[in-house]
Amino acid sequence: MSDRADGMNYAPKGKRNLVVKPGEFVFSVIGLDHGHIFGMTNGLLEAGAVLKNVHDPDKKKVAQFIDTYPQAKYARREDILNDAGIHLVASAVVPCDRCDLGVEVMRAGKHYFADKPPITSLDQLVRARAAAAHTGRRFVVYFSERLHVESAVYAGELVQAGEIGKVIQVIGLGPHRINLPSRPPWFFDKSKYGGLLVDVGCHQIEQYLFFSGATDATVTSAQWANYSYADAYPLFEDFADCNLLGDNGTTNYFRIDWYTPEGLGVWGDGRTVILGTEGYLELRKYIDVGRSATSDHVYLVNNRRQEHIEAAGTTGFPFFGQLIRDCLNGTSTSMTQEYIFKAVELSLLARDRATRLPGFAGGAK
Amino acid sequence: MSDRADGMNYAPKGKRNLVVKPGEFVFSVIGLDHGHIFGMTNGLLEAGAVLKNVHDPDKKKVAQFIDTYPQAKYARREDILNDAGIHLVASAVVPCDRCDLGVEVMRAGKHYFADKPPITSLDQLVRARAAAAHTGRRFVVYFSERLHVESAVYAGELVQAGEIGKVIQVIGLGPHRINLPSRPPWFFDKSKYGGLLVDVGCHQIEQYLFFSGATDATVTSAQWANYSYADAYPLFEDFADCNLLGDNGTTNYFRIDWYTPEGLGVWGDGRTVILGTEGYLELRKYIDVGRSATSDHVYLVNNRRQEHIEAAGTTGFPFFGQLIRDCLNGTSTSMTQEYIFKAVELSLLARDRATRLPGFAGGAK
Repeated sequence: MSDRADGMNYAPKGKRNLVVKPGEFVFSVIGLDHGHIFGMTNGLLEAGAVLKNVHDPDKKKVAQFIDTYPQAKYARREDILNDAGIHLVASAVVPCDRCDLGVEVMRAGKHYFADKPPITSLDQLVRARAAAAHTGRRFVVYFSERLHVESAVYAGELVQAGEIGKVIQVIGLGPHRINLPSRPPWFFDKSKYGGLLVDVGCHQIEQYLFFSGATDATVTSAQWANYSYADAYPLFEDFADCNLLGDNGTTNYFRIDWYTPEGLGVWGDGRTVILGTEGYLELRKYIDVGRSATSDHVYLVNNRRQEHIEAAGTTGFPFFGQLIRDCLNGTSTSMTQEYIFKAVELSLLARDRATRLPGFAGGAK
Repeated sequence: MSDRADGMNYAPKGKRNLVVKPGEFVFSVIGLDHGHIFGMTNGLLEAGAVLKNVHDPDKKKVAQFIDTYPQAKYARREDILNDAGIHLVASAVVPCDRCDLGVEVMRAGKHYFADKPPITSLDQLVRARAAAAHTGRRFVVYFSERLHVESAVYAGELVQAGEIGKVIQVIGLGPHRINLPSRPPWFFDKSKYGGLLVDVGCHQIEQYLFFSGATDATVTSAQWANYSYADAYPLFEDFADCNLLGDNGTTNYFRIDWYTPEGLGVWGDGRTVILGTEGYLELRKYIDVGRSATSDHVYLVNNRRQEHIEAAGTTGFPFFGQLIRDCLNGTSTSMTQEYIFKAVELSLLARDRATRLPGFAGGAK
């Protein structure tokens, strides 16, 4: 379950870095619709969490999950929700259903860890914010393209250390492999996956907020297209981009698409370019195309040096341990609740204000 | 005069590839305000043109030019314009004066080869279009960031050959080194250099039109900022970006700035990323940061392969020979007159509709 050629089942594994004693933090899983659940589970286990139950209506998915994690016992949904011994429920249910499950989980007194996109409408967001405020439970999101990427963790440390001065702009490129014909029907239905600017865009926006330090932003431009799949999948979006202006004066541009070619050895040539007043960083997250098949290449140029850093194996994935400690301690070391909701909100606003591009003049052929 | 660390004096040299007999095509130079004139002159000489005269009011600049090209004789401006033996006048006069010099040159029966940006206002553009139509002379622009870059020439051939399918989007990153304190006063005065979206943006827009095949475009978003120099140079712009939607349905995003750090071995880490339906190209034009100090790296990924191509020394710079033959034959092999004016027009429209970004919240410090 760590297929680098296949983004939907890409489940990074890291070093174990236990933050709890055995049995101190217990989680269960409800909803296996997206393969990200394996990455989410890996991260929690490596930080010392105990996996107790799994639930999905699809018995084959449950069997595959238990095959990977034999400690997981199948349980009914309501039994998981009612189990006072469970601290957190993780879910990769279909995107449009993630929020309401989270509200239910929080009302049942548990923290919630959702795959991205966790929320597909502004009214869902209102419910999630209210539930978090009323229950005091955390609604956390698996922003895997930063949290589960060592080059991104490393770059965050370089930015924090002032290596590139003040951040001016973040550019993100998030191409993904479409992996036809393996995708489930909901993958192509905007009402279910939320639209490309939500589904994949929320990764990009979270990275922008993280690297720039902006706490809010305005969507200055957003657009999407369906260049190649309008006949087969009219509700699909295969290309989108977006510009944001942050409240600290920084800006963001990102492009996301489903155009990873077959010749690339990984599911996407994800890049992040961070421009600062005194230098810049480029992350080649999953491959260094044409140069190296390994992941996590950081390129740093500032007024003192030019450096290529191989970040794989350096930082691990501190997010998961921080998340667990935050749940237990009531802290916000991993990220604040408002930060999470803001990244999600901006992805929804970007989608809702986006214009549709016309596609190729004369059609796709 | 081929200083790779210094964009303003970056004057590539290529292989000689004569397209004319000795004396068949004669040019002179008026206006040495920007070091690009050396690259323009090199290109014409390598294609077999004869350099006759040079004029600039600054005797030191003239002496430096003649030192590089001893065949050039100083002449008065009007003597160059009145010399029926001169086919073309090349100029790197201050940007705001380039167009009207060109109109004068064309009216004097000669072709005109301007450094970029050749035109800094829409009313200048109207005059240039009229003069080209009335005189039948050509108003040609040194879009050096494509024409004098072998990786860009090579990439054009790959796109033409269908290696990435139909082009969907072009992203351009055009960082430049500010080279303080060497810059002349006009460099910081928008009324003279035209603004960043014109000065550097026209390079990016020309590349977009070339790689995408769009013949016209709409500016969907444009913005600029002065993050770091608002006190010292209030009329300067140190950051800008822009989104275009082409008439063929393709799009363009570019970012241009004056933030090349001192640690980079060249004047700018210029990149072009061309996304197609069946693959993508990345150009690392002037350096392969952290990997190689050489220029002209092309990365191709499509459905069949992933390839790193070192394009330096492969294609030469066919533009200059094509330009000369176009002038002599009345053809448009290098590029059409309307294509040139369209790239310029879009840069002016981008600048004129651009919004100003606020800069850093709390100021530059």
